[in-house]
Amino acid sequence: MKLYDLKNGLNPRRVRIFLAEKGITIPSIDVDMVKGENKGEKYLAINPMGTMPVLEFDDGTYLAESIAICRYFEELQPNPPLFGTTPLERARIEMWNRRMELEIQLPIQDVFVHLNPFWAGRRPQVSEYGRVRQAQLLERMAWLNRELGERAYIAGETYTVADITAQCAFVMGRATGSKIPDDLTNLVRWYNLVLSRPSARA
Amino acid sequence: MKLYDLKNGLNPRRVRIFLAEKGITIPSIDVDMVKGENKGEKYLAINPMGTMPVLEFDDGTYLAESIAICRYFEELQPNPPLFGTTPLERARIEMWNRRMELEIQLPIQDVFVHLNPFWAGRRPQVSEYGRVRQAQLLERMAWLNRELGERAYIAGETYTVADITAQCAFVMGRATGSKIPDDLTNLVRWYNLVLSRPSARA
Repeated sequence: MKLYDLKNGLNPRRVRIFLAEKGITIPSIDVDMVKGENKGEKYLAINPMGTMPVLEFDDGTYLAESIAICRYFEELQPNPPLFGTTPLERARIEMWNRRMELEIQLPIQDVFVHLNPFWAGRRPQVSEYGRVRQAQLLERMAWLNRELGERAYIAGETYTVADITAQCAFVMGRATGSKIPDDLTNLVRWYNLVLSRPSARA
Repeated sequence: MKLYDLKNGLNPRRVRIFLAEKGITIPSIDVDMVKGENKGEKYLAINPMGTMPVLEFDDGTYLAESIAICRYFEELQPNPPLFGTTPLERARIEMWNRRMELEIQLPIQDVFVHLNPFWAGRRPQVSEYGRVRQAQLLERMAWLNRELGERAYIAGETYTVADITAQCAFVMGRATGSKIPDDLTNLVRWYNLVLSRPSARA
């Protein structure tokens, strides 16, 4: 197996942290997005979406989408469990992971894509939309801060894939104009807690 | 158990079709979104996101997010399988389900929210962004049309949750300004095929 990776990408980091938590090492290739390698014919044949990460199997087939890759490894190696251990626990962790994607990751990405000069000329930018998303993100961070007043981690008292999703979103947010406000003390506490794990450097 | 539903909602329809395919019936309550019931204190205590569907358990706890609800029922009643039967198959179906959400459902929702008069005064509308998403959606539909030249269903030769996601997105699209163009004949063929299933009327 081989992983098509992107060092600073939000989604590739999710998979790297997931694998580090599992203690799984697989060879990887960094795709050069700045040079447009991910939009070249060769890479689009691997993943028509032009996104990373992608897992290449030894038979030459591919699996894209971070969570699809994570789920695959969760099934191959269930310990430590990151998606839960009972049907109800798995469903609740799925709910929280999706909330982190929809309510935190997507607005952080939208603020980056629509307001950051990095994307000028690379993708259509609509600054008014970026500002709408910025306001929504602030509301969502305040909500998440309240939730984290009640438990240690996003989905409960243990670290799960929902924490990985949220932490990678906030790592990108910090670098692209969506820092966690200092007065959201529960969220700051949680962020420092997850960043202190060795896997955070994966 | 009880389901908080929304008759014309995209996500509630995903769960209804999923349950119909499984032959599962549970009582439901329609939340009146036009009257703002989903933004009232009572409903926000059930789901702070104010979205439907939500599954209420007999112990008074709740599960939100359509796919979390679907996964829960897949585990309770594995047949017919709609998320796959092996780790690799499950991972591939997950990939296709996510592609349908990210590349088809989200742009269709964005076109609706940002270009349709229904949302005027209800949510911030950025028409320029709606047009960007409209153009992206056309590209994605053309890509999906090519993919469906190679197989009967979205993720392979059987009907799965990825078809449910895509079909519910296109049902909303048809009603809100994102119809499938007639010349995308594979996509039209697939759409008629999935709509012919009895569950499509759930």
